Amino acid sequence: MKTGSPASPKEAGFHLPGHRIRFLPEGVWVEVGPEETIRDAALRAGIEIASACGGEGTCGKCRVRVLSGRVTTDLGAEVCEDDREALSCRTRAKEDLTVEIPLESRLGDSRATILHSEVDAGRQEAGLDEYSLNPVVREVSVSLNEPALGDTVSDWQRLSRALGSSLSWQGPFDISISVLRNLPSILRKGDWKVTAGLVKTGERWEVVSLRPGGDDEPCIGLAVDIGTTTVAVYLVDTSSGRTLQRLVTYNGQFVYGEDVITRVVAASRSQEALEEVRQAVLETTNRLIGSALEAAGLDEGTIHCAVVSGNTVMAHLFLGVDPRNIRLEPYVSATAGFPPFKAEDVGIRMNPDGYVLVLPCPGSYVGGDVVAGTLVSRIGDGNRKEMLVDVGTNGEVVLGNDDLLVAAACSMGPAFEGSGISCGMRSVPGAVHRVSIEEGGEVVHMETIGGERPIGICGSGLVELLAAMLDAGVVDMSGTFTGVGGRRIRKNAGDPCYVLLFAEETGLSRDLAIYQSDIKNLIRAKAAMYAGIRYLAEFVGMDLDELEHIYVAGAFGSHLDVEAAVKIGMFPDIGVQKFVVLGNSSVKGSRLAILSRKAFHRMEELAGNMTYVELSTEPAYMDHFVSASFLPHTDLSLFPTARMRADLDDS
Amino acid sequence: MKTGSPASPKEAGFHLPGHRIRFLPEGVWVEVGPEETIRDAALRAGIEIASACGGEGTCGKCRVRVLSGRVTTDLGAEVCEDDREALSCRTRAKEDLTVEIPLESRLGDSRATILHSEVDAGRQEAGLDEYSLNPVVREVSVSLNEPALGDTVSDWQRLSRALGSSLSWQGPFDISISVLRNLPSILRKGDWKVTAGLVKTGERWEVVSLRPGGDDEPCIGLAVDIGTTTVAVYLVDTSSGRTLQRLVTYNGQFVYGEDVITRVVAASRSQEALEEVRQAVLETTNRLIGSALEAAGLDEGTIHCAVVSGNTVMAHLFLGVDPRNIRLEPYVSATAGFPPFKAEDVGIRMNPDGYVLVLPCPGSYVGGDVVAGTLVSRIGDGNRKEMLVDVGTNGEVVLGNDDLLVAAACSMGPAFEGSGISCGMRSVPGAVHRVSIEEGGEVVHMETIGGERPIGICGSGLVELLAAMLDAGVVDMSGTFTGVGGRRIRKNAGDPCYVLLFAEETGLSRDLAIYQSDIKNLIRAKAAMYAGIRYLAEFVGMDLDELEHIYVAGAFGSHLDVEAAVKIGMFPDIGVQKFVVLGNSSVKGSRLAILSRKAFHRMEELAGNMTYVELSTEPAYMDHFVSASFLPHTDLSLFPTARMRADLDDS
Repeated sequence: MKTGSPASPKEAGFHLPGHRIRFLPEGVWVEVGPEETIRDAALRAGIEIASACGGEGTCGKCRVRVLSGRVTTDLGAEVCEDDREALSCRTRAKEDLTVEIPLESRLGDSRATILHSEVDAGRQEAGLDEYSLNPVVREVSVSLNEPALGDTVSDWQRLSRALGSSLSWQGPFDISISVLRNLPSILRKGDWKVTAGLVKTGERWEVVSLRPGGDDEPCIGLAVDIGTTTVAVYLVDTSSGRTLQRLVTYNGQFVYGEDVITRVVAASRSQEALEEVRQAVLETTNRLIGSALEAAGLDEGTIHCAVVSGNTVMAHLFLGVDPRNIRLEPYVSATAGFPPFKAEDVGIRMNPDGYVLVLPCPGSYVGGDVVAGTLVSRIGDGNRKEMLVDVGTNGEVVLGNDDLLVAAACSMGPAFEGSGISCGMRSVPGAVHRVSIEEGGEVVHMETIGGERPIGICGSGLVELLAAMLDAGVVDMSGTFTGVGGRRIRKNAGDPCYVLLFAEETGLSRDLAIYQSDIKNLIRAKAAMYAGIRYLAEFVGMDLDELEHIYVAGAFGSHLDVEAAVKIGMFPDIGVQKFVVLGNSSVKGSRLAILSRKAFHRMEELAGNMTYVELSTEPAYMDHFVSASFLPHTDLSLFPTARMRADLDDS
Repeated sequence: MKTGSPASPKEAGFHLPGHRIRFLPEGVWVEVGPEETIRDAALRAGIEIASACGGEGTCGKCRVRVLSGRVTTDLGAEVCEDDREALSCRTRAKEDLTVEIPLESRLGDSRATILHSEVDAGRQEAGLDEYSLNPVVREVSVSLNEPALGDTVSDWQRLSRALGSSLSWQGPFDISISVLRNLPSILRKGDWKVTAGLVKTGERWEVVSLRPGGDDEPCIGLAVDIGTTTVAVYLVDTSSGRTLQRLVTYNGQFVYGEDVITRVVAASRSQEALEEVRQAVLETTNRLIGSALEAAGLDEGTIHCAVVSGNTVMAHLFLGVDPRNIRLEPYVSATAGFPPFKAEDVGIRMNPDGYVLVLPCPGSYVGGDVVAGTLVSRIGDGNRKEMLVDVGTNGEVVLGNDDLLVAAACSMGPAFEGSGISCGMRSVPGAVHRVSIEEGGEVVHMETIGGERPIGICGSGLVELLAAMLDAGVVDMSGTFTGVGGRRIRKNAGDPCYVLLFAEETGLSRDLAIYQSDIKNLIRAKAAMYAGIRYLAEFVGMDLDELEHIYVAGAFGSHLDVEAAVKIGMFPDIGVQKFVVLGNSSVKGSRLAILSRKAFHRMEELAGNMTYVELSTEPAYMDHFVSASFLPHTDLSLFPTARMRADLDDS
């Protein structure tokens, strides 16, 4: 039985006094005293909450959602249920809390916090140039001849004939029952000119919407990436291929655990528990869709088709399919492929008669997100040996060419997604994403996303921090503090740490610091990734040097310093020029699947061709993991650049 | 604009004193005084209601459903809503009522009242000998290999592979989302032996049910005939082809009018009205299904597929599709063909993931019931010129061979279904179905269905009565009473009538009699039918004598005396031996469609080949109708047998 990584900060090894509040969507932690309001704590954490009444509890602008933990309000009432609203200026923590600060309660251009920043790998990723625009969803305006005594074919025959000639489609059409029910009145209201929304599933086009007239409202497709940590949605104009909105936020399932295993455990308790876990991610997805539609000025009925990608557990939980056997030997999923489902049956916020297509999940721990990444990276399209590594709570590796595709997954935990690390946070404005250290560890240079006041460190920042501490001798190869670092080395609650920014410099309540326990977490995560990469290469009998490219997908954005990642031994030392950073290739693949039926079919093909290798039962993988639990590795012959540096230092 | 026939007895020209109660499902009318309870009225009408307390209102056994009209109870309370229950021994009419006496409140083997008596035309109708057993629904038990570390395909892949080899089906399978959600637990509960229910729609099999183990519960298909007056359901064991249950009852939509036009008018008032009319027939259908399942000892989940046939308006209303344009020139239906619908979307009582297939309706007044009849009668299968006549509230005629199929509909009204006729009733026990008159109209011989005490006259009885009155000289060629008939000729409330059975002979409250107004109704109905038959023959340029067969479907059961029907001029005088009585060929065709995919596809073909002829706009049809409004016809050269008889009488 696989077991999950710890979910709460206390279990994760934090030893800080008092209660702690985690603010979402940033994922920043802050400790609070008994008298401090949630709003004050947020301000100290660097997050500004709106207020018009100055904290009198009257304007209602500082409303937040308390997702877990008990609170007290000024009136002494105690609210115990999860997921409720509170005025942050009048509410205090009675225990550790998770608090979401919704968009409307934020100061400034807060939309940026959930705008998905896309990495553009240019010609190094697959796009519409090779998968031509031929979407699974279409909108067609037709003008029909009015029926007369000599021309009395039924309304539906009349419409489907016109659609057939407009789409040059000889085959039959289907029609949703709710559209059929109102067909006569819509045709006549539009004076025999109507616009139909159609989705192609299998070998048939189905009319899923119909409105009078011939307006040119865009026909929207929805690309959804369900990550364990974050959910991203793209609204795509299927006629132009243009992406209208890109939004991302944390996956609301986090209250059931940080990784897929704890989620499966939570969902396996009962039918009701499974439904609860499903609703959590549905709620997140539907909220994102709502925000995206609002920003685009569109109605939810305009979305006729959604393509969803996610790892296998996420896909199961999203659909409410029992995932329990995924974590029990021999690790079998309920399904690898998904027939098209009606949106209504899935519960997604769009035209209820539209369709939801879920990308195939070839293995229990290799899902549609990886299949999407494989398409986007073009692995399997030629005879070049290439690799995709997808960094997330699970790290996935795909290796191969058009002859052979093998895939594996390793449990990294959410450290590089900014979770389970005391100073960790998501890649949003205020996150430190560049770090360098000079002068014996005494001087730290940092850059934050958006140039804002630093409130935490995101994944790419953690990679650079670890590499910089190693370079500067602040930590040794085992990741242990050496004492180097002068005044920046402190001990808080018994756990030594290295301080990037002192509380007194920032006005925040605490030092921005990395603890010994954080470093151990990060080393475990990067070692899992490297061990997977190495095991898979050995599995197909190749040398890592033979790889022409390694595509990096997942948690890291465009900010990732590949050199630093090699320096800490997360990625193999095969030359920086061989790495291509793709960003969220899962949602990119979903987007392509909506815009191009060829891309969708290619992903089904790729999933069918992929051989899944189970690492958890392989002793060799564990050996690789242990050897990789150093910075960069116990065997420096695998890291020539590091050895060269060590030799230079010695000489 | 077409207009409907009147729905209430007063509008229909009855002039009887006091309130009247119509009892269902028989359709018998009886008049009541202000002090008479519903139970006493029913007893006088010949319908026995159960009671254990002797009318004290305490045992609850005499419960009835008051479908329309206001009542008073002993407690003085007045119930005004439609469709409510009442104790018949303590309830009285405040106005005209329609009262249903449910099965459980009847004395004796009352199930017979809704058992559908099938006509077996033997080798003269199509059956499973030519449409081989190859049902759209299947149940398959499979044993799967338990997954192991070397065999980790997903549960769904494992199951679909086994199903594929069991069904010898190479193509893909679909699975309902609710089945997928529980797939893992069902497979393991059954220790890898399971039974799947599958439906084939289009080119894919879909798993719509799954249960652990390999039991041999039958896999049930449902054949439904939605008639304007009655609804029939058959439960069919699809593995053997055996019909397990055949039930029929009146269509609950009757409260919205007796014919299709008044139903369309009622449903066109608003979206809510359409839904109300839809629910009425759904409720009837679901009640029949419930009774059939109970009698067969089966659960509703065993029904995986339903095939529904009905005229075009009934099909629209059953699905909740706006029918308003069917009655407005140029009489265009919303749809002629129906994609497969999920049972859940239709609201039918069966496995919600199962499918409902609706037979195609080629014309606005020629529906799936006629297509079914065409299949069953084999018109269109050879080069013989043949005709189908379907007698109902609408009379439909199909004429042709494998070269040409033409169809038309004429509005007969429900007279021959026992409605709108003072002594009319449905073909159930107690209905007079044979009549002869002797000795100058003074002596009447009758037979009733089931040999029971006569309480009314059904359609075939009315045909014989009319023919017998004509033969005996009780009425002349125009249908007017001649005075012949002696003491049997009476005048009630100004309307002359001919009494078959005097009240004092029966213990019923009134004479069993036919009124002048009834005769006019019957002549209108038979004239509409004959005019349609004649018009259609002229339309294709043939003589009626050229017909090799006329198949008679619809309201009449096996009791129809074709000679009498020719005598009154309902059917052409081409020789009795050419007529084949089919009974309810609509439900027979639905049954075949469930059992044989070939039969289903043949019906789609037939519907596509059928040319619909609109009679209501044809002056020649009206001319034929007027000429046919005599007994048998104004032109006796068309009825040689009648002319011969007349010549004999004259000589």
